[in-house]
Amino acid sequence: MSDLYASRRTRLRERCTAAGNAAALVSSPANVRYLAGAAPRGAVLLLGKGEDVLVCPGPSDDRPGEERPDDSLRVHLLSRPGGDPAVAAADLLTARPGGDSLAIEEHHLTVARHRELRSVVPRLRVADLGTAVEQLRVVKDEEEISCLRIGAEIADQALGELLESILVGRTERHLALELERRLVDHGADGPAFPTSVATGPNSGRRGHRPTDRRVEEGDFLSVCLGAAYRGYRCEIGRTFVIGTSPADWQIELYDLVFAAQRAGRESLVPGAAYRDVDRAARQVLGSAGHHEGLPALTGHGVGLEIDEDPQLAPAAMGKLDACVPVTVEPGVHLPGRGGVRIDDTLVVRPEADGGPELLTITTKELLAL
Amino acid sequence: MSDLYASRRTRLRERCTAAGNAAALVSSPANVRYLAGAAPRGAVLLLGKGEDVLVCPGPSDDRPGEERPDDSLRVHLLSRPGGDPAVAAADLLTARPGGDSLAIEEHHLTVARHRELRSVVPRLRVADLGTAVEQLRVVKDEEEISCLRIGAEIADQALGELLESILVGRTERHLALELERRLVDHGADGPAFPTSVATGPNSGRRGHRPTDRRVEEGDFLSVCLGAAYRGYRCEIGRTFVIGTSPADWQIELYDLVFAAQRAGRESLVPGAAYRDVDRAARQVLGSAGHHEGLPALTGHGVGLEIDEDPQLAPAAMGKLDACVPVTVEPGVHLPGRGGVRIDDTLVVRPEADGGPELLTITTKELLAL
Repeated sequence: MSDLYASRRTRLRERCTAAGNAAALVSSPANVRYLAGAAPRGAVLLLGKGEDVLVCPGPSDDRPGEERPDDSLRVHLLSRPGGDPAVAAADLLTARPGGDSLAIEEHHLTVARHRELRSVVPRLRVADLGTAVEQLRVVKDEEEISCLRIGAEIADQALGELLESILVGRTERHLALELERRLVDHGADGPAFPTSVATGPNSGRRGHRPTDRRVEEGDFLSVCLGAAYRGYRCEIGRTFVIGTSPADWQIELYDLVFAAQRAGRESLVPGAAYRDVDRAARQVLGSAGHHEGLPALTGHGVGLEIDEDPQLAPAAMGKLDACVPVTVEPGVHLPGRGGVRIDDTLVVRPEADGGPELLTITTKELLAL
Repeated sequence: MSDLYASRRTRLRERCTAAGNAAALVSSPANVRYLAGAAPRGAVLLLGKGEDVLVCPGPSDDRPGEERPDDSLRVHLLSRPGGDPAVAAADLLTARPGGDSLAIEEHHLTVARHRELRSVVPRLRVADLGTAVEQLRVVKDEEEISCLRIGAEIADQALGELLESILVGRTERHLALELERRLVDHGADGPAFPTSVATGPNSGRRGHRPTDRRVEEGDFLSVCLGAAYRGYRCEIGRTFVIGTSPADWQIELYDLVFAAQRAGRESLVPGAAYRDVDRAARQVLGSAGHHEGLPALTGHGVGLEIDEDPQLAPAAMGKLDACVPVTVEPGVHLPGRGGVRIDDTLVVRPEADGGPELLTITTKELLAL
């Protein structure tokens, strides 16, 4: 695995050098993990001309991580508790010849840390690394996709088991906890994000936080969950109806969201503009009169974080590449009545390879439970 | 409750004015919640000379919070998705007469957001609010302490129930999940932080992440958990021994950590220096030869965050006030063998009021389970 991380660092180093920066300081935890194989709490990664250094707060006994950093990296532990690894990294850099320009992650580092870094190492020229590492992370390798695939299988299993149990009378909070327990039972590191279970008037709301409301006959029940597996996070969302026969408005709304979600999924081809994927799903909802209160986006990238680039949204710029995993998750929520969300994680693949690869395979038929 | 939040904002406004700033922008979520009664995702609070405004990203349907903001606040929703509420707040401010100086939370706002704010509103004079809100939060009112007390009762209940069940053969991860389920069963919003369960050689490690190791006869079992209740987070940690008779080294180590923890607790009086509380506990461990690998701190404040000011650590500056809730949590971990941690949440109270109030009342006798 060491080659993998080293080659990622080489790609970043090339970008840095092309932008005129001799070194880069990576502080965002997901970015550190991507490049170093592990992100101990508070650690930063210094990429220099010579050796790369993972600078960690000491002492090392506190809150250890399960992952071990790539063994081609030097690990530098701070001796003083409470010190800032970013400042220590800048100090290490300027101790080397030529080490006087550094690109930092301005979208992650706070103004206060930046100020301390500049005051402790005043002769450093500081530039913005921007989202260079996030951009490297957009296209996944097959190892990464395999982690997402396993995570999706785990989420499918947890959801499938829940559907076999009695739901009426149980609260949103209990159902969410049970799903999270099942994720771990099946081998997840943990939930990829807080599990959302929404019943009745809450159903269909994106990111609804579970309440003490109990499942009732005739409710829509919408569930959104995901597993983290070796750090990779996927997402699945489904909406069910409770009781023997859905009402007409429920069937109609479900069919509409299903059609929108299918339109989004079918537009996932390499080269498709992000906004066109969003538009494909959104215009199905719009043509049925749903314009207000639609989510700001139709989907987003997933990986080491549950919400990564790209954003599939009306104003998003850019085009899909192959091997980019994204969610497609349109929904409609009718205030006071409830609604429907359907959410899959898929990997963009060329048509020659069979088109988008669906990772979350739980049925999208409207199940009456 | 509206008066409560308004009076907190008044205190902050007084501090700002004394520092020469007409307005303040609060962006740290716990600080926003403290001053506004709720912290919708991404929201910032603008405290001006006139009306205070909670600026939230729109549309509002996404990821709604359960808490409602104080109704004396104006709520401003951004119309454009993806906009930065901090930039919008600065824009609102400069639209008012005299609104041209603003204190921001430099320890929270990133360099990139700060840069955008300055470029969108160039005539704004920007200063550092520092940790002014965090400092206001150190001393709690009785309402806040009451939330912590209820949270501690919930954690005691969850822990007590676990102790009545069979432990041998179960994994750290399953025990942690069961504790978290019980926290919610008893009315917690959720766990205050990821529950730590550590067995055998893992026992006694601070913040150990649960693994698939199973509890065995003769193990130390150390558990650290807490409940979040109405946003307030407490912490309890206990170490047990599995089997009928602890080994001599286990009894000796337990007694030592117990003595250190008691020394820390007994030094919690108004006016005590933070470092003296740390030293009281630390020197008990040191006098028994444990110097290496001790945690960087003996305890810390708790409240809306699980790790707040003060830090009870060797280099900490400052003195305890009454009504400050802190943890006292010394521990010793012997690599390869395991160890002991004992962790309570207490509220500093004057001796006349009976001394420190222990919130986490589960026994600290060495239980053999």
